[in-house]
Amino acid sequence: MFPKNAWYVACTPDEIAGKPLGRRICNEAIVFFRGPEGRVAALEDFCPHRGAPLSLGRVCEGKLVCGYHGLEMGCDGKTVAMPGQRVRGFPAIRSYPVVERYGFIWVWPGDAALADPATIHHLPWAEDPAWAHGGGLYHIACDYRLMVDNLMDLTHETYVHANSIGQKEIDEAPVATRVEGDHVITSRFMNGIMAPPFWQMALRGNGLPDDQPVDRWQICHFTPPSHVMIEVGVALAGRGGYDADPSVKASSIVVDFITPETETSIWYFWGMARNFQAHDQALTDKIREGQGKIFAEDLQMLEQQQKNLLAWPDRPLLKLNIDAGGVQSRKVIDRLLAAERGAVAVEMTP
Amino acid sequence: MFPKNAWYVACTPDEIAGKPLGRRICNEAIVFFRGPEGRVAALEDFCPHRGAPLSLGRVCEGKLVCGYHGLEMGCDGKTVAMPGQRVRGFPAIRSYPVVERYGFIWVWPGDAALADPATIHHLPWAEDPAWAHGGGLYHIACDYRLMVDNLMDLTHETYVHANSIGQKEIDEAPVATRVEGDHVITSRFMNGIMAPPFWQMALRGNGLPDDQPVDRWQICHFTPPSHVMIEVGVALAGRGGYDADPSVKASSIVVDFITPETETSIWYFWGMARNFQAHDQALTDKIREGQGKIFAEDLQMLEQQQKNLLAWPDRPLLKLNIDAGGVQSRKVIDRLLAAERGAVAVEMTP
Amino acid sequence: MFPKNAWYVACTPDEIAGKPLGRRICNEAIVFFRGPEGRVAALEDFCPHRGAPLSLGRVCEGKLVCGYHGLEMGCDGKTVAMPGQRVRGFPAIRSYPVVERYGFIWVWPGDAALADPATIHHLPWAEDPAWAHGGGLYHIACDYRLMVDNLMDLTHETYVHANSIGQKEIDEAPVATRVEGDHVITSRFMNGIMAPPFWQMALRGNGLPDDQPVDRWQICHFTPPSHVMIEVGVALAGRGGYDADPSVKASSIVVDFITPETETSIWYFWGMARNFQAHDQALTDKIREGQGKIFAEDLQMLEQQQKNLLAWPDRPLLKLNIDAGGVQSRKVIDRLLAAERGAVAVEMTP
Repeated sequence: MFPKNAWYVACTPDEIAGKPLGRRICNEAIVFFRGPEGRVAALEDFCPHRGAPLSLGRVCEGKLVCGYHGLEMGCDGKTVAMPGQRVRGFPAIRSYPVVERYGFIWVWPGDAALADPATIHHLPWAEDPAWAHGGGLYHIACDYRLMVDNLMDLTHETYVHANSIGQKEIDEAPVATRVEGDHVITSRFMNGIMAPPFWQMALRGNGLPDDQPVDRWQICHFTPPSHVMIEVGVALAGRGGYDADPSVKASSIVVDFITPETETSIWYFWGMARNFQAHDQALTDKIREGQGKIFAEDLQMLEQQQKNLLAWPDRPLLKLNIDAGGVQSRKVIDRLLAAERGAVAVEMTP
Repeated sequence: MFPKNAWYVACTPDEIAGKPLGRRICNEAIVFFRGPEGRVAALEDFCPHRGAPLSLGRVCEGKLVCGYHGLEMGCDGKTVAMPGQRVRGFPAIRSYPVVERYGFIWVWPGDAALADPATIHHLPWAEDPAWAHGGGLYHIACDYRLMVDNLMDLTHETYVHANSIGQKEIDEAPVATRVEGDHVITSRFMNGIMAPPFWQMALRGNGLPDDQPVDRWQICHFTPPSHVMIEVGVALAGRGGYDADPSVKASSIVVDFITPETETSIWYFWGMARNFQAHDQALTDKIREGQGKIFAEDLQMLEQQQKNLLAWPDRPLLKLNIDAGGVQSRKVIDRLLAAERGAVAVEMTP
Repeated sequence: MFPKNAWYVACTPDEIAGKPLGRRICNEAIVFFRGPEGRVAALEDFCPHRGAPLSLGRVCEGKLVCGYHGLEMGCDGKTVAMPGQRVRGFPAIRSYPVVERYGFIWVWPGDAALADPATIHHLPWAEDPAWAHGGGLYHIACDYRLMVDNLMDLTHETYVHANSIGQKEIDEAPVATRVEGDHVITSRFMNGIMAPPFWQMALRGNGLPDDQPVDRWQICHFTPPSHVMIEVGVALAGRGGYDADPSVKASSIVVDFITPETETSIWYFWGMARNFQAHDQALTDKIREGQGKIFAEDLQMLEQQQKNLLAWPDRPLLKLNIDAGGVQSRKVIDRLLAAERGAVAVEMTP
């Protein structure tokens, strides 16, 4: 159960460099490739000739050439040519709205008539040279909403990430959740604490002492369909916290695009955008490596949680104050799902 | 189809040393850990907060701390504490009767009200310093009854274990099976034969010659739900066989606890208890290593037999005299299953 | 859906040298072994005693001895002996008609009463010392008909085998398909082209120049149930092509026996028979190695195509002129399937 009329991150440009990429998104088998002038295209991964996956082929002069018998497919899902054949009557395959923006390839797996690129999640930092971004991709066998829950309740850091970003004070600080339309915000402020190892590294990376008390914050933003941006940071204690001058803080945005593959698996694009030492590529690499290790700690927990929930499908879960971020996010998702069902119902009414 | 109102071996103490253990027993997902004062506890492996497996957590001061968000679970399935939460209203999870005895952890996966520790299989040798025991654990993808059949008919030794404990004379000696209540005994005596390699090693280990004729015996004892203890040994020929003086024989008990995981997989706890050279740890290790190799020879056969039976579910099998031990053991199991179904039927009658 | 009243290649003699072989053919679990005087036998892979696979046993004096409890099975599916048992009343297991011929073991998985060894596919080259043959076996997860399609339309060579036997001229040359009873022939002739790498090697192997224009041919022969023999070769250009004198050409027969394992998997026996330098074993090995690499290139495509077709079961495929060979072959197969269904219907009519 995922909204299909939405923009999801499908892949990153390096994944379609010089070759097509086959990837299942929201249960749709899609092939991504660069068409004429490098524009991204997204099609059903099914050759109309004999059903071979087009993603096993190659890109030639902006056309996707089937690797089995050489059918040449255009970006619109219509066959352009095939050796020795007249292709005009060939059935078209479905094409998906797709946009390259902010360093990601975005796809709309639902009704193409409703796809408006203006509604793609806005990432101002992605176009600002004062910011740097690094990230990666994990495949995880869980419902995408379990990852939304995970990211909208960071108390898990104390337990899952005990040696990097977790610390006891997270548990002890109250969390506040509010909803603004389809936007869910959950925030936590911890003042006058010692920074955990990951943030000590970031402080040093920004030329700040790592052995003094800091004010720490976490502000999680859910927006549909399943994006979670988390403002995180530490400032030297008593200097304004979240609002402190950039010279006395290290802050960044944890970037999470959670793209459903199937009902119980996701493509998880994780990353971190920061606006300090933006041109220090070695720091970007170091942060990415550190974040990659930390975020890998969630995999086993989420996959085993998923298995438990599948084994006990009717068992109610608790909804505590710390869960409010996830609970509210699911309400937004449920509204979108109901709206999609309503739209379909209307369409089917004579 | 396994009796659930029964004591099964769940694990050994080393498996829960310092950390919880998640293990499926009779289709129940259970977490085992040591609570206050080291007493063993067994609970549903499901955190009441968000459904994470508690076995991914850690044990802290006798409580099981969920590795996701820090819920602290007590041995009775009631939440003790959770950071920042009042836990009084949290739903309890199921706890299972569990007992540590004879060097094993025993669990009762059925109706807790019927669990009586006095009915745990009695192992007198386990508390006798004149005896030593060594063993291991195999996971095998077969119905537990196929392993009961295997152990109650040792003619398979001639074929599956041809190079260690098998010998032609096993086939040639008649087997006798008798039933005493829920206890099935099948026995075979082979007099004046040469010992096979495993028993030659045991004779040498006991300071006896390995090149003289021996009298050999195998007495298999099935008791519910699925335990098989096998008295095995050799004595110098003509000195009384099974009843011979300990100074002229090498004998031991093959210890088999067959614990169903699912309908078609088992946890197989195998071992050997002996009352000669009991303090010789090197001999214990050597026997365990030898037994481990021999018992591993059964795995492929049992798993492939299981696959064949699943593919041909309605095909009748033969019940020969050599199969009487397994056949009678299954009758005992069937009686227990019928009794459990009857008890449920009575409970459901208004 | 495969014809069962047909001779399929089951294995090669080396696969049953000194031990039985368990192999599923047309959904039948069969054990192959050499009985008295080395004659091949094929039986259900199911011991009538306790259902163990007989293929885990061993062959002893022409009998198949079950590896579990020593039941001795004869070539006719009747138990010959078992230690300590009278076996006369043991139920027989099914035996399958089986013939060793042309260096292959052929099995008839259907109605034994209809099996006539005279209808085994005739391989004249296999008995002619002027010819040499080398080949191998691949297991592929696809419907056998996808492999028939593959082999009856060699335009795929241009794309799947671009670096070995593929070349642009294949696409450009028209293909002709004709049907003679149950025999489908599809042929392509390319004159005055440069030989691709594999054929350059073959020319050199036959003492011919590899840098001159050649006439190339491909003549694919489908015969039921699913055999495809392909006459392939090159001759120095203008010397008669297919009919040129052997001294100016290199030609061979691609040998393909496609044996269904299940509805969606096959045992693919591939090979090449040639009538030049027949006694050069090093050349045979070199060709087999080259062919093995080339034919392995088809695996991924066929398995992924199969997955796509399973995911989109109702989606129509195109039937172009290049597909005529596969389309006509499937018509032959459909006729055989209908005939088998009809025969069953007649049998069931009172």
